[in-house]
Amino acid sequence: MSTIEIEYCVPCGFLDRALAVEEAICRQFADHLNRISLVMGDHGVFIVRVDGEVVFDKADDDFDVDDIVRRVRPHVAGR
Amino acid sequence: MSTIEIEYCVPCGFLDRALAVEEAICRQFADHLNRISLVMGDHGVFIVRVDGEVVFDKADDDFDVDDIVRRVRPHVAGR
Repeated sequence: MSTIEIEYCVPCGFLDRALAVEEAICRQFADHLNRISLVMGDHGVFIVRVDGEVVFDKADDDFDVDDIVRRVRPHVAGR
Repeated sequence: MSTIEIEYCVPCGFLDRALAVEEAICRQFADHLNRISLVMGDHGVFIVRVDGEVVFDKADDDFDVDDIVRRVRPHVAGR
């Protein structure tokens, strides 16, 4: 069972993105998760971590919900 | 700054309720929060905790998003 964090920039208005990613992950992987957290950040941050490991960072890659779900999958499914 | 947990029953299909509560809380109180978490549970659980303190339990009260937001407010706003 895994724990996921989505750290998002509150002043940037990234809440909708964070909720979209969270919902997509929960619909696919809830049975493999203990917990998924939204972590309030600033300075443009948008990072997704699975068990502390960064699987998506907006600073490095374009935002795409389906892509993020694909990156999460190998860390949580079939464990 | 506060931390909120929403523990919801996964097999009951309470994800939509959990997301609705989380979104409402984030829209109102994100500036007062460090983190808000969905915690996967079962056996019909739907509990909202602020800093570990239960402010809503479906076992005791009817589910109502606005009511839950009202219960969260005094624990987080104006601190």
